[in-house]
Amino acid sequence: MKEKELIKLIKDTVKSKYIGDDCAYLKDLNLVMSQDNLVEDVHFSLKFTNAFELGYKSAMVNISDIAASGAEPSYLTVGLSLPPYIGNIFVEDFFKGMQQACRNVEIIGGDITGSDKIFISVTAAGKTLGRKISSRKNAKPGYKIIVSGIHGSSGAGLKELFNGNKNKFTRAHLMPEAQTEFSKKIAENIKCDYAMMDTSDGLMDALIQISEASNVLMSVNFEKIPYDKDIEKFENFKDLIFYGGEDYQLVACVPENFNIDGAYEIGAVKAGQGVEIDGKIIDDTETKLFNHFKEP
Amino acid sequence: MKEKELIKLIKDTVKSKYIGDDCAYLKDLNLVMSQDNLVEDVHFSLKFTNAFELGYKSAMVNISDIAASGAEPSYLTVGLSLPPYIGNIFVEDFFKGMQQACRNVEIIGGDITGSDKIFISVTAAGKTLGRKISSRKNAKPGYKIIVSGIHGSSGAGLKELFNGNKNKFTRAHLMPEAQTEFSKKIAENIKCDYAMMDTSDGLMDALIQISEASNVLMSVNFEKIPYDKDIEKFENFKDLIFYGGEDYQLVACVPENFNIDGAYEIGAVKAGQGVEIDGKIIDDTETKLFNHFKEP
Repeated sequence: MKEKELIKLIKDTVKSKYIGDDCAYLKDLNLVMSQDNLVEDVHFSLKFTNAFELGYKSAMVNISDIAASGAEPSYLTVGLSLPPYIGNIFVEDFFKGMQQACRNVEIIGGDITGSDKIFISVTAAGKTLGRKISSRKNAKPGYKIIVSGIHGSSGAGLKELFNGNKNKFTRAHLMPEAQTEFSKKIAENIKCDYAMMDTSDGLMDALIQISEASNVLMSVNFEKIPYDKDIEKFENFKDLIFYGGEDYQLVACVPENFNIDGAYEIGAVKAGQGVEIDGKIIDDTETKLFNHFKEP
Repeated sequence: MKEKELIKLIKDTVKSKYIGDDCAYLKDLNLVMSQDNLVEDVHFSLKFTNAFELGYKSAMVNISDIAASGAEPSYLTVGLSLPPYIGNIFVEDFFKGMQQACRNVEIIGGDITGSDKIFISVTAAGKTLGRKISSRKNAKPGYKIIVSGIHGSSGAGLKELFNGNKNKFTRAHLMPEAQTEFSKKIAENIKCDYAMMDTSDGLMDALIQISEASNVLMSVNFEKIPYDKDIEKFENFKDLIFYGGEDYQLVACVPENFNIDGAYEIGAVKAGQGVEIDGKIIDDTETKLFNHFKEP
């Protein structure tokens, strides 16, 4: 069963109106909440990451979820399950890494237990006062599609790690940067509904999710997508851009006349369904999505 | 390294004022938050629990954490990592169990991923408006010690499960009941600081934690502790009462003149340190605490 079907099954079982976006928006508490699990040898391997980087990324991916909602990342709780051979230096380095990613975000609690493999679950809470909260359901024909920065570097970094290299791409993969300023500029200034997601599962995944939830056609011009030209040395570098994932950039659909500094306009929302790149509808995505967990 | 030392290390590393109680109290948001990890073959085994019971208990232990703070259990997020052999019926039953435990609590989101073993991390959020929030630091000499109900049944149930039996004790172990009404009565009516914890790690653990955090002597009369007389058939049944854990009762230290229905007074807070049962200081606890994860 695929993740999307499981989420639908869960939503149907618990009859929740909140499940659907990466964050749940609790209006009564002026709060969004989000939780992510990271499992050793599924989402990361100690062959390629150290404790500091792992802590850093565990915090940052959750901060990115909050940023994608438009809320202000504020608090984290951390559930950490560790095999007996993990020592206190690992724990200290892990939390130093978290702390570095956190900046104004506070780590307020959590749980620590034993396990066979490392299991990390981070919950993030963000304040919504003074901010307009996004939903992937909110894209409308006539809106433009904007992104916060370059795509493909993290996927390239994973390939480089498998090849035993260390460079700017491996750094992009191991220590990504949540786009909190881009998020803040939109959420504090926009007056109408808008859609926003991060590219944790890839740019194409974000485009598809918004397209499906909003029932619109996402029309993208490839040449407008920002990326580091050095990834052109990788075979199928366009796959890294669309499917590599873990760049933690933001993709937003906002009105044509809404402008912020630092945004790259990559296309337009149109009446219709699906995703088109340079006018060509994409229909082979299922085989490529989420493949960043597998070795190339 | 023991759990308590690890928590101190984490608290020192991230310099958080929040870490210390089971819940973090975010006054700016009128919210408490708590997170618990449950790991297959550490905290539970599919030999002894089914998916419905597992979901039920995963929700209830987190609802209990919120109840221990005095807040109103309101929202849960669920991070669930599952091995490939787990099918959709398991997932559906798990969430039906959660739903049954939740009552007025809403499941609002989470994450679902792959893993080798089942890994569950639940985060609970509770509203604090109109309630006085507890802290284990708040016990004061002259306060009385009260509990919400019977101790030892869950530990007895675990023994019964190992023996292949099913009865009221196994039910107490598999489907415990968080003491939300007891919590509400105290938190909505008390005017001064008070201490409260649940007995997830055992009655003795709760007494020790309050004693250490408040720097007081917890003086308990054994004969006043409520328990099901049928557990007397177990060898060392007093160990089940003090160390068995997972009864999810509440232990509170409140002023002598503060009374609520349904409370059992089991002793008094005194100047001093540690825990005494019938006048005898307990000093062999370290070897017995947390032993409910091991087979007997």
